[in-house]
Amino acid sequence: MMRAVVIEQFGDADSLRVNPNTPVPQVGENEVLIRMKAAGINELDLRIRATGWRTYKPPFTLGLDGSGIIHSVGQGVTTLQPGDRVYVFQPITGTYAEFCLAAEDRVYKLPNNLSYEEGAVLPNPYFCAIRCLKRAGFKRGETVLVNGASGGFGLGAIQLARALGASKVVGTAGTEKGQELVEQMGAEKVLNYKSPDFKRDLRDVFGPKGVDIIIETNVDVNFEMDMNLAARLGRIMVLGKRGKAVCTPQNLVFKETTVMGCALFFCDSSERLKMSEIVDRGAEEGWLKPYVGRSFKLSDVAASHKFIENRKGASGKLILLID
Amino acid sequence: MMRAVVIEQFGDADSLRVNPNTPVPQVGENEVLIRMKAAGINELDLRIRATGWRTYKPPFTLGLDGSGIIHSVGQGVTTLQPGDRVYVFQPITGTYAEFCLAAEDRVYKLPNNLSYEEGAVLPNPYFCAIRCLKRAGFKRGETVLVNGASGGFGLGAIQLARALGASKVVGTAGTEKGQELVEQMGAEKVLNYKSPDFKRDLRDVFGPKGVDIIIETNVDVNFEMDMNLAARLGRIMVLGKRGKAVCTPQNLVFKETTVMGCALFFCDSSERLKMSEIVDRGAEEGWLKPYVGRSFKLSDVAASHKFIENRKGASGKLILLID
Repeated sequence: MMRAVVIEQFGDADSLRVNPNTPVPQVGENEVLIRMKAAGINELDLRIRATGWRTYKPPFTLGLDGSGIIHSVGQGVTTLQPGDRVYVFQPITGTYAEFCLAAEDRVYKLPNNLSYEEGAVLPNPYFCAIRCLKRAGFKRGETVLVNGASGGFGLGAIQLARALGASKVVGTAGTEKGQELVEQMGAEKVLNYKSPDFKRDLRDVFGPKGVDIIIETNVDVNFEMDMNLAARLGRIMVLGKRGKAVCTPQNLVFKETTVMGCALFFCDSSERLKMSEIVDRGAEEGWLKPYVGRSFKLSDVAASHKFIENRKGASGKLILLID
Repeated sequence: MMRAVVIEQFGDADSLRVNPNTPVPQVGENEVLIRMKAAGINELDLRIRATGWRTYKPPFTLGLDGSGIIHSVGQGVTTLQPGDRVYVFQPITGTYAEFCLAAEDRVYKLPNNLSYEEGAVLPNPYFCAIRCLKRAGFKRGETVLVNGASGGFGLGAIQLARALGASKVVGTAGTEKGQELVEQMGAEKVLNYKSPDFKRDLRDVFGPKGVDIIIETNVDVNFEMDMNLAARLGRIMVLGKRGKAVCTPQNLVFKETTVMGCALFFCDSSERLKMSEIVDRGAEEGWLKPYVGRSFKLSDVAASHKFIENRKGASGKLILLID
């Protein structure tokens, strides 16, 4: 038996409970069982908790990514062995638990110089940032704006764009604390998107040429602005954000702008492997620095979700520590 | 001196006049002078006539494309000679005129089996359709929906998608006449976008998988519908259309959909040459069939613009005959 945050029925943060009598998953062929050390808290978790997100049906264990130690491996597993320090992405059973079952090809060795806490920041944020810049066709020397840069994903995107040779990397945040953090992580310039001069400031920073790649976590509010701000043949990369946007799609035509939805659903095994190689390289070269915004104990899982629901702006990735 | 539709000041269709005393342009280095036979009437012409479209300042001759015979060539011209039958795209002086000046690398030989009238249908519609499918990364076996398929561009897109091996090509039109035309041009299925069952019909035709490539000429109305209709990793290609759209950009995320503005502004010389080669191949293989919806005499230029302003739906490309 293990402790795990099992969703018995959809509900609010207060409905979250650690079930101390959850059966440990059985490891099957090409699968590994991980003794979890830390789990990433993703905004998507909140929606899955509340609605199942059209995909999950109770009972199930919450959690999409995290880090830990390989406890046991199933038949056919060749790349991992018990005792390996790993991070996991899109597991079979949830990561808000002492043990987590995952397919071998969704588990990667944790770089030696990263802690388990840092490892729990890697999977969704960094993989998504890598895929985002790859799909955008990022080329060395291009300019990048990360709108909403102070969360785990945004900080990863800032680090990545700098390391890959962007000629200018600008981030935005909604709080002073967030702004400071984005600057520490390497943004050349950080703007506050709540400032009344925000749009003018952006134009001043990027000039009449506009921005080559806009990574947009607040598309519902910024879609029209982004269309105006994009350089010719610019790309607006859209991350999940609910809400309606009013826009003038013709503005996409004049500059032959591209808008792309960005997620990790359709990555295949070889794409994921390449992402993990970029993570390895970043850790080795020292530019990849996962930032833990705040950590909660597994037993404080309800508080962690409430914290996200009530915060005014992100500052780093939140994680659950599993002892 | 020549006859030409010169815009002296911006105005409505009735302000259009043929000026019989317009100086014939002088041909310079790497330029050719074309004795025009037919000019394409593009919707953009109407905007340029009315407002200059932020680009044109009176006086200037209207017209963005057409066909004719090379009259004379400037120094350095190697690919064309007097007497060649040609079509022209993005000329230096307008095509609503007896003579038109153009850079050598914007003039292409007209396939032998196409008339001048057909030649005037080629440049903007077919080049734009080719670029659109190319930017979309079209692959043999994908499904294609052309929303608003009965104009010159839409018909070209239908022919092209079929010829390149789409597994399903569906077009839409707003009138019965338009629907018939789209069907004649090779669409497997044609829907009327004014039908109350339009959205349901589309879902029936494409099934739960959705559409791989949506070529959208009515994005202001259809943007939200397109996002729902797109297949995973689908692409929505947006052609110029004024107006605001209300949409839910998050719908782009789940399926990692791409939206791309499509125009011809940023084609370079080698891209244009490749487009002309596809036109040549299509004419030779017989699948490229430019359709002249209606032709007007140069002296009826005002009537031609009024016709577009008052029509209920497109049916083929309109051209001006220049004798």
